[in-house]
Amino acid sequence: MVHLVPVDDPADPRLADFVRLRDVQLRKSLEAEHGLFIAEGEKVIRRAVGAGYPVRSFLMARRWAEPLADLLAGTGAPVYAADDAVLEKITGFNVHRGALAALDRLPLPPVAEVVAGARRIVVCEDLVDHGNVGAVFRCAAALGVDAVVLAPRCADPLYRRAVKVSMGAVFAVPYARMTDWYGGLGTLREQGFRLLALTPAADAVPLDELDLTGRCALLLGTEGDGLSDRWQKEADQAVRIPMDATALDRGVDSLNVVAAAAIACYALTR
Amino acid sequence: MVHLVPVDDPADPRLADFVRLRDVQLRKSLEAEHGLFIAEGEKVIRRAVGAGYPVRSFLMARRWAEPLADLLAGTGAPVYAADDAVLEKITGFNVHRGALAALDRLPLPPVAEVVAGARRIVVCEDLVDHGNVGAVFRCAAALGVDAVVLAPRCADPLYRRAVKVSMGAVFAVPYARMTDWYGGLGTLREQGFRLLALTPAADAVPLDELDLTGRCALLLGTEGDGLSDRWQKEADQAVRIPMDATALDRGVDSLNVVAAAAIACYALTR
Repeated sequence: MVHLVPVDDPADPRLADFVRLRDVQLRKSLEAEHGLFIAEGEKVIRRAVGAGYPVRSFLMARRWAEPLADLLAGTGAPVYAADDAVLEKITGFNVHRGALAALDRLPLPPVAEVVAGARRIVVCEDLVDHGNVGAVFRCAAALGVDAVVLAPRCADPLYRRAVKVSMGAVFAVPYARMTDWYGGLGTLREQGFRLLALTPAADAVPLDELDLTGRCALLLGTEGDGLSDRWQKEADQAVRIPMDATALDRGVDSLNVVAAAAIACYALTR
Repeated sequence: MVHLVPVDDPADPRLADFVRLRDVQLRKSLEAEHGLFIAEGEKVIRRAVGAGYPVRSFLMARRWAEPLADLLAGTGAPVYAADDAVLEKITGFNVHRGALAALDRLPLPPVAEVVAGARRIVVCEDLVDHGNVGAVFRCAAALGVDAVVLAPRCADPLYRRAVKVSMGAVFAVPYARMTDWYGGLGTLREQGFRLLALTPAADAVPLDELDLTGRCALLLGTEGDGLSDRWQKEADQAVRIPMDATALDRGVDSLNVVAAAAIACYALTR
């Protein structure tokens, strides 16, 4: 039997973890300060709990409690129930996809530990868009990339939108964050990874001609500008996805980062 | 010399094409009714004009007029200039990416005409998300897919977000819309296309074992649910992107539609 705690005051301090979920700036500082993140919807919440993240509290419309009953009873965290209008006032949007959970973050392992047994990894330099980060994790999980390493300024995989777009893959693919952007790639090279810089540059090696033996790290740059000069210079090899001969006539010289990451991960893991 | 028409009343009827650009429901009916669409930013506007779409009017902050001067002078359409606060009141968002243009739609060619010389085409059943439609067009343009065919209910490639995400590829890749969902695939088969249904189903043929000779049509389904039963039955062959053996343990059984489309288009055009 799940004990629901009815709430009807959007300013109730017990709901502070869930306020203004669409206000990116506010959420970034609030989540960092309190060491929390938000998972949304039954499937994703189950994956987060299954991955060992402790639940701080749940917030939902009453109708979502039933399908989650086993999990709600199991965690012992408070379950706040509100009607849709109150939910919208708290979160800032129409919560129609199901329950919300606030969970505690766990300390990230060091980069060396995460890549220790890995053969294929993706390294994201400074992706800005949380949806893109989530999509890269989903590709990594689906295609068998062993781990993801993030540059210090890459967007947070546990941000709500990243979690959602990843379908929970951010809980399944081991990842770590570099503390040092400048020297971070050197550490990977010392561990025997060949550093492959993904770029649209015409003089890069086409993906389908690449030697894929040994340990490979695929470097993905920021949306729009791509990899920094520093990382491009540090890489062992520049690789490109072969564009069609008609692409330039069509005014297109590259793919978006998710499409490019998907193709490169596919080629890397064949 | 560009003649700018200063405007400061957000309710000015001459600006009606640009109202509430984030209100998807309103925009869908307004754009359909008036046969218009919106392009945003210098690069995309240039591509739209280059592709032959007639400009109805421009709206921008004064600072965006200079880089577009040649084009503004060339089209003869009125150029409305407003300050940022007025622009935000009209459009409903902070227009920081540059000029806006309202353009007339052109009649779409029939499906048979668009696919006549094509060898590789993508057929989108009912994609809902405009960003995904735009990304599919960008993949098609970059990788050399010859044409795109849309089911009757697929989201509009000329919707502002689709145009933006496609980087203007929606103006470069020939496309048409079926009028008949039920019988639409039959027409393609009569033209000699082998219909390949992209699906995560385990018993589908892996993409890398597919026979790619002849004319191929890659069928993409809606986000989440994928292709309809009808289209799956109509297809000549179900194909899947090979997932890694660890993917299911990681709770992931598929890729998002853009990642899947990118990989499939890459394989299809090798």
